[in-house]
Amino acid sequence: MADTMKVAVMTGIGQIEIEERPIPIPKEDEVLIRIKSVGVCGSDVHYFVEGKIGDYIVKPPFILGHECSGEVVEIGSRVENLQPGDRVTMEPGIPCGKCDYCRSGRYNLCPNVVFWATPPVDGVFCEYVTHSASFTYPIAPEVSFEEAALVEPLSVGFYASGRAKVEPGRVALILGSGPIGLVTLESLIARGLTQIISVDIFDLRLQKAKELGARWVINAKEEEVTQRVKEITQGRGVDYVFETAGGVSTTQSTVEVVKKGGKVVLVGLPSQSRVELDVIKIIDGELDVLGIFRYANTYPGCVDLLNAGRVDLASLITHRFSLEETGEALKFAHEHKAESIKVVVNL
Amino acid sequence: MADTMKVAVMTGIGQIEIEERPIPIPKEDEVLIRIKSVGVCGSDVHYFVEGKIGDYIVKPPFILGHECSGEVVEIGSRVENLQPGDRVTMEPGIPCGKCDYCRSGRYNLCPNVVFWATPPVDGVFCEYVTHSASFTYPIAPEVSFEEAALVEPLSVGFYASGRAKVEPGRVALILGSGPIGLVTLESLIARGLTQIISVDIFDLRLQKAKELGARWVINAKEEEVTQRVKEITQGRGVDYVFETAGGVSTTQSTVEVVKKGGKVVLVGLPSQSRVELDVIKIIDGELDVLGIFRYANTYPGCVDLLNAGRVDLASLITHRFSLEETGEALKFAHEHKAESIKVVVNL
Amino acid sequence: MADTMKVAVMTGIGQIEIEERPIPIPKEDEVLIRIKSVGVCGSDVHYFVEGKIGDYIVKPPFILGHECSGEVVEIGSRVENLQPGDRVTMEPGIPCGKCDYCRSGRYNLCPNVVFWATPPVDGVFCEYVTHSASFTYPIAPEVSFEEAALVEPLSVGFYASGRAKVEPGRVALILGSGPIGLVTLESLIARGLTQIISVDIFDLRLQKAKELGARWVINAKEEEVTQRVKEITQGRGVDYVFETAGGVSTTQSTVEVVKKGGKVVLVGLPSQSRVELDVIKIIDGELDVLGIFRYANTYPGCVDLLNAGRVDLASLITHRFSLEETGEALKFAHEHKAESIKVVVNL
Amino acid sequence: MADTMKVAVMTGIGQIEIEERPIPIPKEDEVLIRIKSVGVCGSDVHYFVEGKIGDYIVKPPFILGHECSGEVVEIGSRVENLQPGDRVTMEPGIPCGKCDYCRSGRYNLCPNVVFWATPPVDGVFCEYVTHSASFTYPIAPEVSFEEAALVEPLSVGFYASGRAKVEPGRVALILGSGPIGLVTLESLIARGLTQIISVDIFDLRLQKAKELGARWVINAKEEEVTQRVKEITQGRGVDYVFETAGGVSTTQSTVEVVKKGGKVVLVGLPSQSRVELDVIKIIDGELDVLGIFRYANTYPGCVDLLNAGRVDLASLITHRFSLEETGEALKFAHEHKAESIKVVVNL
Repeated sequence: MADTMKVAVMTGIGQIEIEERPIPIPKEDEVLIRIKSVGVCGSDVHYFVEGKIGDYIVKPPFILGHECSGEVVEIGSRVENLQPGDRVTMEPGIPCGKCDYCRSGRYNLCPNVVFWATPPVDGVFCEYVTHSASFTYPIAPEVSFEEAALVEPLSVGFYASGRAKVEPGRVALILGSGPIGLVTLESLIARGLTQIISVDIFDLRLQKAKELGARWVINAKEEEVTQRVKEITQGRGVDYVFETAGGVSTTQSTVEVVKKGGKVVLVGLPSQSRVELDVIKIIDGELDVLGIFRYANTYPGCVDLLNAGRVDLASLITHRFSLEETGEALKFAHEHKAESIKVVVNL
Repeated sequence: MADTMKVAVMTGIGQIEIEERPIPIPKEDEVLIRIKSVGVCGSDVHYFVEGKIGDYIVKPPFILGHECSGEVVEIGSRVENLQPGDRVTMEPGIPCGKCDYCRSGRYNLCPNVVFWATPPVDGVFCEYVTHSASFTYPIAPEVSFEEAALVEPLSVGFYASGRAKVEPGRVALILGSGPIGLVTLESLIARGLTQIISVDIFDLRLQKAKELGARWVINAKEEEVTQRVKEITQGRGVDYVFETAGGVSTTQSTVEVVKKGGKVVLVGLPSQSRVELDVIKIIDGELDVLGIFRYANTYPGCVDLLNAGRVDLASLITHRFSLEETGEALKFAHEHKAESIKVVVNL
Repeated sequence: MADTMKVAVMTGIGQIEIEERPIPIPKEDEVLIRIKSVGVCGSDVHYFVEGKIGDYIVKPPFILGHECSGEVVEIGSRVENLQPGDRVTMEPGIPCGKCDYCRSGRYNLCPNVVFWATPPVDGVFCEYVTHSASFTYPIAPEVSFEEAALVEPLSVGFYASGRAKVEPGRVALILGSGPIGLVTLESLIARGLTQIISVDIFDLRLQKAKELGARWVINAKEEEVTQRVKEITQGRGVDYVFETAGGVSTTQSTVEVVKKGGKVVLVGLPSQSRVELDVIKIIDGELDVLGIFRYANTYPGCVDLLNAGRVDLASLITHRFSLEETGEALKFAHEHKAESIKVVVNL
Repeated sequence: MADTMKVAVMTGIGQIEIEERPIPIPKEDEVLIRIKSVGVCGSDVHYFVEGKIGDYIVKPPFILGHECSGEVVEIGSRVENLQPGDRVTMEPGIPCGKCDYCRSGRYNLCPNVVFWATPPVDGVFCEYVTHSASFTYPIAPEVSFEEAALVEPLSVGFYASGRAKVEPGRVALILGSGPIGLVTLESLIARGLTQIISVDIFDLRLQKAKELGARWVINAKEEEVTQRVKEITQGRGVDYVFETAGGVSTTQSTVEVVKKGGKVVLVGLPSQSRVELDVIKIIDGELDVLGIFRYANTYPGCVDLLNAGRVDLASLITHRFSLEETGEALKFAHEHKAESIKVVVNL
């Protein structure tokens, strides 16, 4: 094995350059992984184009990418759960394990978490990475590296649906049918829901939602969503709404379409923080409005669903690039939303 | 017993007249109750002054009042849990018992509920009323009728704190220290919380909050609430916020003062339905924003706390009127918020 | 329509006679249903053969049968959710709707419940029955009456898995692969579990378990279950155990095979009440041992899963009889456990 | 500060000798604490007298003691939450923070936990100890060191009551009124319960239960518990039973006295693992039988209740010894159960 590796470095806004850097050395409880596939996340694109998300500001040189999979090539002296040669997917955030959030099972809220590709922590658009063995999960032989990389976004939908404690027999609405909307759809189906309405403005995405099992799809450019949801539910409204589009008006519409006692799950970050909500609907309807920040304790379940073929991540991938083309991949994802769903970089 | 009774009838906006009406006859599963005390609720005042709340419009003649207690004077043929002479408090809403909400334990959301003093259902500012024996609860000899009438508002605070699944050791903030804010305070204390911050703009109410066990009080006219809460919590924010003031700015402030993973409980109805909320705080902070509509399954617990002296409802009562003075009671409650907390009508 | 109907009446232990009885008349909130299919439940067989289950003693003449479906032929004056001609399945127990259990969502524990074929309440081995419209559920055109009758046993497995709050990614063990074991299996699969071990002593049942999606099956006559489970789980034990066999030794084994923090769900009634359990395993392992009594709030979810083809009830049916053959059906189910799974009576 | 300290070492069954040992040196995330008070736990007595508990076998020399408090005398280089001079209580078990149990909030089940006085990990009957700063909690100036040491047993009762999700208004039965029974009582009262029945065979303990707020007490030597509980509850049974006595017959009685839908919480370890339970009561009554192993996430809440004076730990202490008398303290606790409740060693 060589001493150095290729790394796709963000050197400025909209700029990626390939550099040679030393291959990192795993600590005693870490493994060294040869990266095989990295999904392009909306947050990567946002950092690439805008240079920041909220208070997180990129200071180049910086490495993007956090949805990934690979092969273990070396293990630390105290690692017992993995062997060189294991095909794995990696949970990108390592929490401290000691704070109140960590101790009580909500490690996604750990203030000390070290999360790939969230400034100032570098990500994984590169050939090798070291990672805590505890947050590295073997995958089945049948599962491709591409699919395994998408366990990360799947985790978001899986966690959101778990946090809402969804039950079979109920009706769910998903606002937005991009990658997160679609993995939410798949998670709901995996959890036994059959009556799911998917919404988007791009037909490609709605067609995919339909293929993946949405019973109804609504193109919000062509139909009035609130009205159409009322028709579908015969005036009752839905039991659960998942907002994954990150839109102001979609966020506002959540409380309009949900029934009394229902749940509104907010996953997508709108571009502006302040959104007018009908709080009387929240109070009189005794709603639960639940925010979602990443996920916790989802990888074993998501890997299991993927291994067992209960979710289809392969068909979300519409475009593929090489590590050298990381910049093109990010640009493509940014500019071709209507024609793409998931863009991946394969190594 | 006479055949007729006195009834305080709302004959128009701001008008109450005393009429004689027939005493009702209990059905086989009902009891006839001689009313002894009726609390004046903010909703009574609102109907009295404005003639409506949202879509609920008073069509006079109408009877207000739903927080009440009394003495059983007659029982229906199939009533087994009560006897004439029993001193009781009554849960004012009778749900259908058959719909999905009723069957799953959320009967407060029953669309077929019959609730006193919610148009077009008459309330209890009168001498006698019939009521389902199942929703009529005996009280201990030590408990006064006045206190028993206030089990109804106590239920709101008790339910809100239960829905939030509060735990001892956590920090709670209560926005508003009117009757609902104060019974929320008492419910939180009864459930083992010791670190509670009460907020209001009237000193009388804050003084009462302090007496009832609030560790900190903030007069929002004199101190910047968000800033003061951060000081008290050393920058961390609170675990739970209960909004009972029904204000637009207080509702907005809930998501500013709560910590990550915390809960925002919305109890008070703001005067305008649309309120700008910082939804990014909800999402990034993974908050639960929970609406509260009345209560369900609270009376046994609230009566128990009252019987055992674990809550103090007597000291909430600042002013008393007779049934003949019902109009004055409503006017007083409307015009003297700064000097009063709870106004009751005793018979 | 004639005035009378055929009824299969249990006239003594092991005796069924066909009688003519008047067709009942629905009350205002009831419907009259032409029965189309009735599943034979283990409890029916038990009453038929033994004349009692615990304190419930059959006093002939008595009508068995409670797993059923049919067609609405007449509706009461206040029924709005159904029409004559509707194809339906019926929840066999009508709770009081008023007691503490009913109000808090656990209506299966209602002490006043009226439940078909539980002495002294007659069941539905007959041509017509009246039933509360609220507990009568329309089924999709694609669903057969036979399948619809089996929503009742499905409810048991669906409820048991719901009460255990099962999560995808976890490992479940089902002791017993009779009808209840198999619907538990199907419910777990519907809720996203992929790693399920089914156990029985009859190969026919294990083969069915395999077809329905069990990843592993164990014939307890051929393999030592505890040992085999440890192998499968690499020594860790399972997350959930469902005891549906009603055996003493299977009940005892539950706490041996479950991992720390796991859940033991007891569904099957053992023939003797007192069973030696290793309580130190319960305490040190911090287990949840959860009893299951019938179900509550399951029909909408189960009908939805059936309508959507997410569960396969048809393939559970191995033998069919006519109403006139009800006695034979019961005898067959009693004597041919090894060769049958579900026996139904079709009309 | 000297280099060595006094340590009370168990040198054989029933033998304690005082030795001089080096004072330990805190790691960067640890603090050095001067021990001030150590409670004698039933497990300490058991190890002292029997040399083992189940699979945990003492290999002398061994140090007992894990309920403790003290004063911080030195802090590691990365400790931020504590200062020398801080008065503190210490959580005796340090979990790994990485396993599935730790990550999901159930760190008490961590297989890698390092817990004081659980062989082979030494305990704290000594002058100084080092401990993780994250598991060391400051106490209020009003709280004595003796009381602070008893936060550990309080945690058990607090956790058990929390795991049972107890609600005000419900009726609880506590079997056993030793230290754990009494802190369970206090935890239930702190969480708003008023109707609590305490049981024991020693009058001293029942008198203490009465003083601490039990509404009813039963001396099991004088009254038939099951019968008396039925009388108190008018035949209904209790909502919750907490078994803290660790008796075979008390464990058996739990399912007899609890009502349908109730909860049985097993805290005390019986001397024999196999106990005959009426499992039909568990199934038909749809009980939750919940094992309790230590506690997790309880210290902040328990310290808060103690600081606020909501629990009374001081009055549990009946006898005091010095470090030199540790052997006598253990012997006394073993031989004088009837006359003592909590024995502490003060330094």
